[in-house]
Amino acid sequence: MRQPVALSHASRLVNHGPTALIITEHAGRRNVMAAAWSMPVEFTPPRIAVVVDKKTYTSELLLASGRFALCLPVPAQADLTFRVGSESGRDIHDGHDKFARHGIATFAGPVLGLPLVEGCCAWLELERIAEPHSEQAYDTVFGEVVSAQADDRVFANGRWSFRDDNAPWHTLHHLGGGAFAVPSRVVQGRLAAA
Amino acid sequence: MRQPVALSHASRLVNHGPTALIITEHAGRRNVMAAAWSMPVEFTPPRIAVVVDKKTYTSELLLASGRFALCLPVPAQADLTFRVGSESGRDIHDGHDKFARHGIATFAGPVLGLPLVEGCCAWLELERIAEPHSEQAYDTVFGEVVSAQADDRVFANGRWSFRDDNAPWHTLHHLGGGAFAVPSRVVQGRLAAA
Repeated sequence: MRQPVALSHASRLVNHGPTALIITEHAGRRNVMAAAWSMPVEFTPPRIAVVVDKKTYTSELLLASGRFALCLPVPAQADLTFRVGSESGRDIHDGHDKFARHGIATFAGPVLGLPLVEGCCAWLELERIAEPHSEQAYDTVFGEVVSAQADDRVFANGRWSFRDDNAPWHTLHHLGGGAFAVPSRVVQGRLAAA
Repeated sequence: MRQPVALSHASRLVNHGPTALIITEHAGRRNVMAAAWSMPVEFTPPRIAVVVDKKTYTSELLLASGRFALCLPVPAQADLTFRVGSESGRDIHDGHDKFARHGIATFAGPVLGLPLVEGCCAWLELERIAEPHSEQAYDTVFGEVVSAQADDRVFANGRWSFRDDNAPWHTLHHLGGGAFAVPSRVVQGRLAAA
């Protein structure tokens, strides 16, 4: 079940390196693309950096609107993630978009109203922090998280809990060529020597 | 067995969001710290961004030397990773450093000679790309990879292969509080509908 996540815990959602779907919308046009390259850069305020190739339709909509969202897909969405990461929304000319082409159900983000993807395990809305040099030189966009939500079957009390009984809501981590690793095993480090 | 990785494949090593050990060395002082926050930003030339709190000893040595290394720890190194991420090398005053304190065996990096951690599954040496604004505002350091190596039991031909029979060399993905997810399951996305 989708639940709000405290903004102070938002960085935890992407701390372990999941692949995300990036959502953008501007002036009646919207897009969804896969992005493997993102990371938190600050806990408070919660800030995230994400790499968005400046040639992409996503980059165009992101820079024009100043906002974007990250949705974390689950194993059942591996095909979808690979597909939306392998085509450009700019190439769809039949009046539809990638959401329509792939039958992607959405709900409105609570703060920015961006079309978030149903069935993911976590969702973040972000406002772009304008950093033209990083965007130009490294395709690196900085954003501040303004809403965070997660499925409480797999993320609760500020922590992921990856277990056999919630495997359908684990995150995806792109290895290349559409192969995604799933973090289904957990090891606990200890500070004191045993 | 440790093998060189083509620089064009270096970004693949961190594409899936592993936690890394950051190695720094300057003027006879060296340090190792854990960093969960890194990402590739470019394939060619191979460039990576990593978040290093500017208050840390690692940041001091990195900025002074202009170089650093990333080593990817494996499950047997979860305790070590949690420990070196929970203490500062600046606080060790007995003439030793974290390597000595934790009995960390090292070998010299092939290009920069940095002390790389034995027993990891991948190793990268990087030269800092000076970006004072990103470093100051976001603790975000950009680096260019100048050497890459990986254990060929788990990474070969430019790809990770996470299987049951090579589980001891899987990567760690920090969830918080010393808990690390291990990407031990793989799902393959398909481009064409079944």
